[in-house]
Amino acid sequence: MRITFCCTGTKAEPWLQGLRAALPEATIEEWAPGAPQADHAVVWAPPQAMMDEQPALRGVFNIGAGVDALMRLKLPAGATIVRLDDAGMSVQMAEYVCHAVIRHFREFDVCADNELDARWVFNRQLRRGDFPVGVMGMGVLGERVAKALLQFEFPVNGWSRSPKQVDGVRGFHGQDQFDAFLGASRVLVCLVPLTPETVDIMRRDTLSRLRPGGYVINVARGGHLVDDDLIALIDEGHLTGATLDVFRTEPLPQDHPFWSHPKITVTPHTSARTVRDDSIEQIAGKILAMERGEAVEGVVHPDRGY
Amino acid sequence: MRITFCCTGTKAEPWLQGLRAALPEATIEEWAPGAPQADHAVVWAPPQAMMDEQPALRGVFNIGAGVDALMRLKLPAGATIVRLDDAGMSVQMAEYVCHAVIRHFREFDVCADNELDARWVFNRQLRRGDFPVGVMGMGVLGERVAKALLQFEFPVNGWSRSPKQVDGVRGFHGQDQFDAFLGASRVLVCLVPLTPETVDIMRRDTLSRLRPGGYVINVARGGHLVDDDLIALIDEGHLTGATLDVFRTEPLPQDHPFWSHPKITVTPHTSARTVRDDSIEQIAGKILAMERGEAVEGVVHPDRGY
Repeated sequence: MRITFCCTGTKAEPWLQGLRAALPEATIEEWAPGAPQADHAVVWAPPQAMMDEQPALRGVFNIGAGVDALMRLKLPAGATIVRLDDAGMSVQMAEYVCHAVIRHFREFDVCADNELDARWVFNRQLRRGDFPVGVMGMGVLGERVAKALLQFEFPVNGWSRSPKQVDGVRGFHGQDQFDAFLGASRVLVCLVPLTPETVDIMRRDTLSRLRPGGYVINVARGGHLVDDDLIALIDEGHLTGATLDVFRTEPLPQDHPFWSHPKITVTPHTSARTVRDDSIEQIAGKILAMERGEAVEGVVHPDRGY
Repeated sequence: MRITFCCTGTKAEPWLQGLRAALPEATIEEWAPGAPQADHAVVWAPPQAMMDEQPALRGVFNIGAGVDALMRLKLPAGATIVRLDDAGMSVQMAEYVCHAVIRHFREFDVCADNELDARWVFNRQLRRGDFPVGVMGMGVLGERVAKALLQFEFPVNGWSRSPKQVDGVRGFHGQDQFDAFLGASRVLVCLVPLTPETVDIMRRDTLSRLRPGGYVINVARGGHLVDDDLIALIDEGHLTGATLDVFRTEPLPQDHPFWSHPKITVTPHTSARTVRDDSIEQIAGKILAMERGEAVEGVVHPDRGY
């Protein structure tokens, strides 16, 4: 069995070592033009040329949860595309989102400003019932985030493509219930996959439906958000701010207004990073299962885009 | 039935209104010198004079979880002292502590500094297994905090006076296991009651036992911490910082070094504030239960001090 590794922006050597240790019977090499035909590929944002040269691939394993970059390529006809299910990412996502929601709800940024001036003043005491959080996208990550938020007794709404029941979460699904979902939410957490249907899903008309004082947390893809609409809605006062981890262009350009906007918090696409050891273990397990003819979790449906 | 209300630093009117609505058969008034003998008192840091003038009190209800200020008084011999069990405080405590732990672990303060300079740089990726959190004090608040931390997959140690089992928490108890508890912990969360045994419990020799890179979160009482020892251990590098919500003198004096220390975060005793409506409901229910001769939760044992 031959496995090719082609992950843009990733140091290959530790991955190759880990994969070789986990799959000692396989030949595992970094991809380069003209490389021999492989049975499986481990990829992150690979070039089209790599796919064109590897028509025999049976499995393509994405080392992240979002496969939008992969879906823009023409892929080998016989290949099954598999994304990471979790691999240590959902707990990071839960802690990133809970941190952002709590910081917003408790106004810890106001505390920090007061601290600079050695000022002992109490924040307003707000009611958590007035801060329903809407989790847009209830996959592995969304469900984990929703459950973490429930523990802090925030009302939680979940929106997904198809009906999904999670204890304690008020479920909404499909396009028909999208407006109702937005209207029931004050804090919006974006965790949907980026597909042609979800590009620009956060724009003036949708974000305007959030409850007054709305707050946006984007931990999915920059392409979900119309940047200028967000800034306008904050400056007009309908939204109170945003925490953004993903951007249309990454790294976020130095002159982008998000950097300096006082009500927008920017982090450099770090909400949930791939944990290498967990990922290697998961991918190796799935390759072996696929070779045995077993079903694996996380198979991507190219028609729906995730 | 007559109830007297004596809460220093608290606006009486909304409490009186709420208590009167919950207990319409009772006469409820704010205490003043010479007030008639009451059956029950609702108090926060009352003066000794009030207790001296009210020998007939059967119940003294503290509108907070910590009764250390009350324990310093001479109380009526026949009075049962009752503290608030929860009343909306444990969820606030869980979110305050989780926010502080996540902010520390994920180095979100570094992100904020980078944001000021529009710098797109990744933080170090740290292993949460290297950040065991020790919860000192496993009462209602401590247990809630421990459970919230477990959800983010931090290893959690709990220390209590008597043995206490909580699923997923490594339990330590008593003086004998205190050093082992400290040695197994890197982040220390203080949630013990302030008693003669726990005054100065966080000082040079105890804090030195935390794992290197230790971090202190004090949400109990200022009297638990020796301020100068904390600063020295941070400046020497054994500890990396602290988040402090309580202080030996409150408000924290303007010239106290905690305010300006770059590795210490100060908040103005707001980790968990009494939620008035919840508290009134709880106290009214306990007064009625006591009048019916039933046992109530939260009775303070004056010998152990909480």
